[in-house]
Amino acid sequence: MLKLVKTSSRKAGLSPGSPIFIGEKVTEKFGLDMVDYDAENLVISTPIRLDEFHLLKDTPSNTWIKVHGLHDAEAVNRFCLGFGLHPLTIEDILHTGQRPKIDHYDDYLFLVINLINYDDKAKEMSMEQVSFVLGPRYLLSFHEKDSDIFNDVLVRLENNKGRTRKMGVDYLLYCLLDRVVDNFFSVLEKIGEEVEELEVELIADPAPETLQSIHSLKREMILLRKSVWPLREVINGLQREETVFMGDSVQVYLKDLYDHTIQVLDTVETFRDIISGMIDIYLSSVSNRMNEVMKVLTIFAVIFIPLTFIAGLYGMNFNTSQSPFNMPELNWYFGYPFALLLMAATAIAMLIYFKKKKWF
Amino acid sequence: MLKLVKTSSRKAGLSPGSPIFIGEKVTEKFGLDMVDYDAENLVISTPIRLDEFHLLKDTPSNTWIKVHGLHDAEAVNRFCLGFGLHPLTIEDILHTGQRPKIDHYDDYLFLVINLINYDDKAKEMSMEQVSFVLGPRYLLSFHEKDSDIFNDVLVRLENNKGRTRKMGVDYLLYCLLDRVVDNFFSVLEKIGEEVEELEVELIADPAPETLQSIHSLKREMILLRKSVWPLREVINGLQREETVFMGDSVQVYLKDLYDHTIQVLDTVETFRDIISGMIDIYLSSVSNRMNEVMKVLTIFAVIFIPLTFIAGLYGMNFNTSQSPFNMPELNWYFGYPFALLLMAATAIAMLIYFKKKKWF
Amino acid sequence: MLKLVKTSSRKAGLSPGSPIFIGEKVTEKFGLDMVDYDAENLVISTPIRLDEFHLLKDTPSNTWIKVHGLHDAEAVNRFCLGFGLHPLTIEDILHTGQRPKIDHYDDYLFLVINLINYDDKAKEMSMEQVSFVLGPRYLLSFHEKDSDIFNDVLVRLENNKGRTRKMGVDYLLYCLLDRVVDNFFSVLEKIGEEVEELEVELIADPAPETLQSIHSLKREMILLRKSVWPLREVINGLQREETVFMGDSVQVYLKDLYDHTIQVLDTVETFRDIISGMIDIYLSSVSNRMNEVMKVLTIFAVIFIPLTFIAGLYGMNFNTSQSPFNMPELNWYFGYPFALLLMAATAIAMLIYFKKKKWF
Amino acid sequence: MLKLVKTSSRKAGLSPGSPIFIGEKVTEKFGLDMVDYDAENLVISTPIRLDEFHLLKDTPSNTWIKVHGLHDAEAVNRFCLGFGLHPLTIEDILHTGQRPKIDHYDDYLFLVINLINYDDKAKEMSMEQVSFVLGPRYLLSFHEKDSDIFNDVLVRLENNKGRTRKMGVDYLLYCLLDRVVDNFFSVLEKIGEEVEELEVELIADPAPETLQSIHSLKREMILLRKSVWPLREVINGLQREETVFMGDSVQVYLKDLYDHTIQVLDTVETFRDIISGMIDIYLSSVSNRMNEVMKVLTIFAVIFIPLTFIAGLYGMNFNTSQSPFNMPELNWYFGYPFALLLMAATAIAMLIYFKKKKWF
Amino acid sequence: MLKLVKTSSRKAGLSPGSPIFIGEKVTEKFGLDMVDYDAENLVISTPIRLDEFHLLKDTPSNTWIKVHGLHDAEAVNRFCLGFGLHPLTIEDILHTGQRPKIDHYDDYLFLVINLINYDDKAKEMSMEQVSFVLGPRYLLSFHEKDSDIFNDVLVRLENNKGRTRKMGVDYLLYCLLDRVVDNFFSVLEKIGEEVEELEVELIADPAPETLQSIHSLKREMILLRKSVWPLREVINGLQREETVFMGDSVQVYLKDLYDHTIQVLDTVETFRDIISGMIDIYLSSVSNRMNEVMKVLTIFAVIFIPLTFIAGLYGMNFNTSQSPFNMPELNWYFGYPFALLLMAATAIAMLIYFKKKKWF
Repeated sequence: MLKLVKTSSRKAGLSPGSPIFIGEKVTEKFGLDMVDYDAENLVISTPIRLDEFHLLKDTPSNTWIKVHGLHDAEAVNRFCLGFGLHPLTIEDILHTGQRPKIDHYDDYLFLVINLINYDDKAKEMSMEQVSFVLGPRYLLSFHEKDSDIFNDVLVRLENNKGRTRKMGVDYLLYCLLDRVVDNFFSVLEKIGEEVEELEVELIADPAPETLQSIHSLKREMILLRKSVWPLREVINGLQREETVFMGDSVQVYLKDLYDHTIQVLDTVETFRDIISGMIDIYLSSVSNRMNEVMKVLTIFAVIFIPLTFIAGLYGMNFNTSQSPFNMPELNWYFGYPFALLLMAATAIAMLIYFKKKKWF
Repeated sequence: MLKLVKTSSRKAGLSPGSPIFIGEKVTEKFGLDMVDYDAENLVISTPIRLDEFHLLKDTPSNTWIKVHGLHDAEAVNRFCLGFGLHPLTIEDILHTGQRPKIDHYDDYLFLVINLINYDDKAKEMSMEQVSFVLGPRYLLSFHEKDSDIFNDVLVRLENNKGRTRKMGVDYLLYCLLDRVVDNFFSVLEKIGEEVEELEVELIADPAPETLQSIHSLKREMILLRKSVWPLREVINGLQREETVFMGDSVQVYLKDLYDHTIQVLDTVETFRDIISGMIDIYLSSVSNRMNEVMKVLTIFAVIFIPLTFIAGLYGMNFNTSQSPFNMPELNWYFGYPFALLLMAATAIAMLIYFKKKKWF
Repeated sequence: MLKLVKTSSRKAGLSPGSPIFIGEKVTEKFGLDMVDYDAENLVISTPIRLDEFHLLKDTPSNTWIKVHGLHDAEAVNRFCLGFGLHPLTIEDILHTGQRPKIDHYDDYLFLVINLINYDDKAKEMSMEQVSFVLGPRYLLSFHEKDSDIFNDVLVRLENNKGRTRKMGVDYLLYCLLDRVVDNFFSVLEKIGEEVEELEVELIADPAPETLQSIHSLKREMILLRKSVWPLREVINGLQREETVFMGDSVQVYLKDLYDHTIQVLDTVETFRDIISGMIDIYLSSVSNRMNEVMKVLTIFAVIFIPLTFIAGLYGMNFNTSQSPFNMPELNWYFGYPFALLLMAATAIAMLIYFKKKKWF
Repeated sequence: MLKLVKTSSRKAGLSPGSPIFIGEKVTEKFGLDMVDYDAENLVISTPIRLDEFHLLKDTPSNTWIKVHGLHDAEAVNRFCLGFGLHPLTIEDILHTGQRPKIDHYDDYLFLVINLINYDDKAKEMSMEQVSFVLGPRYLLSFHEKDSDIFNDVLVRLENNKGRTRKMGVDYLLYCLLDRVVDNFFSVLEKIGEEVEELEVELIADPAPETLQSIHSLKREMILLRKSVWPLREVINGLQREETVFMGDSVQVYLKDLYDHTIQVLDTVETFRDIISGMIDIYLSSVSNRMNEVMKVLTIFAVIFIPLTFIAGLYGMNFNTSQSPFNMPELNWYFGYPFALLLMAATAIAMLIYFKKKKWF
Repeated sequence: MLKLVKTSSRKAGLSPGSPIFIGEKVTEKFGLDMVDYDAENLVISTPIRLDEFHLLKDTPSNTWIKVHGLHDAEAVNRFCLGFGLHPLTIEDILHTGQRPKIDHYDDYLFLVINLINYDDKAKEMSMEQVSFVLGPRYLLSFHEKDSDIFNDVLVRLENNKGRTRKMGVDYLLYCLLDRVVDNFFSVLEKIGEEVEELEVELIADPAPETLQSIHSLKREMILLRKSVWPLREVINGLQREETVFMGDSVQVYLKDLYDHTIQVLDTVETFRDIISGMIDIYLSSVSNRMNEVMKVLTIFAVIFIPLTFIAGLYGMNFNTSQSPFNMPELNWYFGYPFALLLMAATAIAMLIYFKKKKWF
């Protein structure tokens, strides 16, 4: 299940801007992947010395550096300082669990977003913080762990099809963000399937586990929403601000990306509404079942209680020899058949009564 | 039932602007209908060669081309490129399941809306994406499948009554949108009837199926709302923007259209509120029924339990010959009538008690 | 009960601005009432020829024409065209069931509002659309059927007391709107009484009918709200817009009218909140009653079940002569009193147990 | 209980601005209290002739006139006309039950607010409309009945401590409004205590009366909120508007007053949230109780039903002499002890079963 | 439990700006801690005479004075007047329980915020008002009681690491506010753990106490929210206002602080949503349990009721010697085995019926 809050108490009391990593200690190693490209050339480099990376910053070609393994706070800090990042930026990169946001610095643009992954087997979402730093000719992306979500973009860069190579790092940033938003769609699609399965289950055979599934879906929606609302602001921020880092040619793509984000949000809200309705259905189906149980009990009890009473009546030991009033039925020739008939008549009357009440 | 999300995973990872069709594979053929008209003449043409269509774009007459059969992505792509549409526009046309939106390009205006159809027999809604491209003298409309919803407009064009022929393609676009909004009214009217039927059913004879109907109505309202809210923004966008494509003479009609859209929204919200209230009514009627069942059980049990006890009492086998204290009633002359009277008195007392409690 | 949607399917597919009447076919005749007045004179005219009415439009005196019987669409259309109304305006007048709105045309101001009537006997609301057209020296009001709600205003005009005669048609419009808003207060007052009656009923003796009353009240509130929210916008629109048709001297009255509308809205919202709370109370009272029923059943069952068991025990037929262990109690001298005491003790223990549990 | 709507039907149909009193007919007499003061002198005058009051309006000293007994509409009307108040103002003063509001006239500022009183014994709120008219050197306050809430302010004026005497009538108005807002705090404090008492009661011993208390608290919150929201707007209006009647030196106090109003609003909203939660707790405690009742019934029934069956079994009258298969147990030496043991074993098995189910 | 309202009735009726302490009477002594620093020097002084403190105000070094023990209203008042604070400021400092706010005075900036503490043992939050006065070279902080929350900041000042010493009192204020916001995170983290524990408990073994925990969590969320929403406004106010007291160099830090506050708010809202969902789960688990209980009862009753009836039947005393129709079974050779078989068959039929109904 998704954690509600990241452990941040380790940080409380530290000087603002302290480069401390907040997040799960991943055992994975700190690593860097670098792609240097322009319309003609593309170099995917093997890791070079950490302190030389920032030299690439001023080359005329576009540079994308993907940093993963944030738990090595010191290495990340050293790397970031090389690029002249503000201490608060470095704190936000390391202190994962941030709310998606955009910060405008003089030298660069800083973005934090959440990436959602959906584990098909466990039917569980997991969330990862990805930070971007967009400078004039470079783009840095920071990942908690090495993931392959941006591989399609890399492949497009390598193949040199479409616009990607011809345009700048701002377009590259757009491509990565578009990938993130598309990923939301994939997750929502899977959740939509789960919702529809649960709807069928609700009608066919609701069990207490169904409610737990609904609850955990609802919880996921709440957390998803918490990630998407600010993402919308972030992309809106990219659009509106006349920042020098996002060129005019990218604006039309950002508008499209923004529309997609709104669509994600809409879908999340729709799911929330539908899931809320499912809880009502569940509760009412529980009530209906209890009603069912009660009816069976009542029908049985109400039919047999008078019969048992009649049987009890003729089981009394009044002395028939003492008085002609004492249970003369016991000595009747047709006493027993009479009693059986009385019982049958009572039972049939009850059944007619229930039939009229439409209980079965 | 309406699908919650369109399958979009096929798209994830593709380059932005890829012309891939996302939607149900309809077996219907790709087709084009063309209407070329001005105040004097009107030509409804038989399909011509795909790549010559765009030549019409620059004729002084108004041209409306209706494209259906979007699953043939390649044909659509070729057709669109002929009109100089932006790759993102083509992607949005093909990637059905878009949120209604309006995009302003230099050469044209792009609109996506949802068209709702209501199947009277199955009492189910279905949703279809319709895209419009409005250029200086041409209007393109893209449909997933060939539908006859715009036939009235075509008839008006042919009859040359009213304003339609005398005005430009902007007025034609207004007419089509007006038709779409009127269609929402028709759907809402039918849903309104369903709501009123359900309200009667709720009071007369609520069954678990009633709740399922309410739930599916609620779900439809949620999805309808998801289509109408952005439609409102789209029409508002047409109004506000001083776009060259929408002439001043059409503004008064757009204002009216906008009012109608608001009315649709209002009605959707009203239905949502009423449907929510119906769930409460249902749940309480289930409670009431259980109450009813419980009361019947309790009345029977409480009346017969003491009687059965008395019968059991006199069914005990204490030896009356051993002691005068051992059940002397059994040998009384009026023992049995006394026991019967005792039982009758008990039963009557119980009935009075329940009468006072107003249980029946 | 208030209809949720007006039948509008008759309209779908028609050209925008078609003069078709949408509403209940009232059998009442089409009719016109005209009042022509200035500070000195007042003429209430008998109906004149339909096509001469618009001549009054340009006289220096103020003219108020009240049109009722909208089902005669053709007559209304002819009348309206005489005044030069836009086809969309005529459509909105005839297509009753519009959302309240204000439209600014060059020659006149067009207002649509809803008038609420409350039938005291049936305790039901009904809704009627009233449209106003305010020109430079004339005011047209359109009613579905002839109603006497504006008679007070007419009386004030005749008596020539107060400001009404001295001021223009804009003040007259204000007076009519004020009357409509006052009418809302009357309706709310009656609904308020109903709410208070229901609150008493809820506590004293809630029945399933109570819930139905609550539900229909809630429904009325939803529909009332749907009429009042846009009314607020309409009156706000009159205030804000520097339209030439509303003089400066009327602004202070409009401000007051606006405040009253807000007060109506506030009251509607308050009623909604209170009615929602009542549903909770109802549901909980149903639960309480079931609890009550259950307790009675349980107390009876739990007291008598052990007693009946004891009676059954001594009703067993073990052969006492076969062995001293076989039910020697049956032959005891005080066997029967002992059994009765045992039963009494059991019953008393149960009663103490329930007393301690505070069940009665 | 607070009335939901004031009776206003008496007014419907009257000319706007008619001086009719709407409210409870209080038997109290109409009365006036006047305080005339400047930094040096203070005169509290005995009632003078009604039509001379307005002469004070133009004296250089500050004049505060407190009018109570609004049911004498004619006297109030005469008094107000002397001060040149607009008919709509007089209508608003007399038509109590207004929504708090602020009106800017050329000659004066008009404020309507609601004053809340809390009756400690009946634990009930009552609401009273207080209107203020602030002119250049005079302040009029109108009260439905004579109350002593503003006595502290009067005492401060008499003692001539602090700023009150040195500053103008605008500061005096602030002092009165501050007193009104402080009064809200007192009322909220008492309601807060009630809420906390109810929370304890809910956990310790919830009864149907508890729910009624919660409901009436909720209702009070709804009505309180209806008074405080517009009060906020009123005070905001005083702040923002560059009215000549509120001097610059008072602005800092108004800011403070505004903050307090927000705090009142916050508290009202908080109470609403908490009260909503209490209804859930109540409903669940009712469910828990029913559960409790059901468990007791079930445990008893399930334990004794098999025992009674066994007893019934050995109460059958099969003829043991007819066949060795006919209930040979009845003639066993240890038949009865065996039956008792069988019963005990059954009962113990049941108890173990319930223990395992954690039912007690 | 957190108090809903602070006792403020003591204040009602006092002149605005009266220096009266509203809050719990803490026994702790009034005290002052002073830190005077610039980039080179730092002096932590022992308490000096109360009326000399304000002399420090004009020294070129930065001065931070921490005042604790607000119940000594007179001393605080004297101290504040020395710094030239406005009476309303002093009132707000002393009248604890204020809503967080920011006031701009000519000479200083005044901030009120709430500090949340979480008692790990009692699992309870407590709230404390902290006020700040920021002047040109001095910062005053007022605390209800002496707390060590700002000690980290003091240590950073002493160690002279980082920026703290080099920058002005505006940066110091930022550091303190940052500490407060970090504290919210710590509290939320603990509450998050509690929420997750409760979620586990809900599924494993829900008890009435669980609901009470949920309710008190919900209540805490409501009160937390009431503190954080205005805090957001306060920090936003610091950012936006071009106040001379907050230097440009601090703006980037304030932006970061603002982001963190939003994140706190987001988390609070998320918790609220999740907690609401938990109540549904709880209620449904109660329903499920009752269902369980009902099923056990019904299964037992429905199986044994017919058996008991059969036993009762053969317990009747019809005289078999009187007629061959009177219970001949009693004299059959296999009478008893036949009766036993009949019972077994009935019981098995019932079990099969329940199995088919999937009741166990």
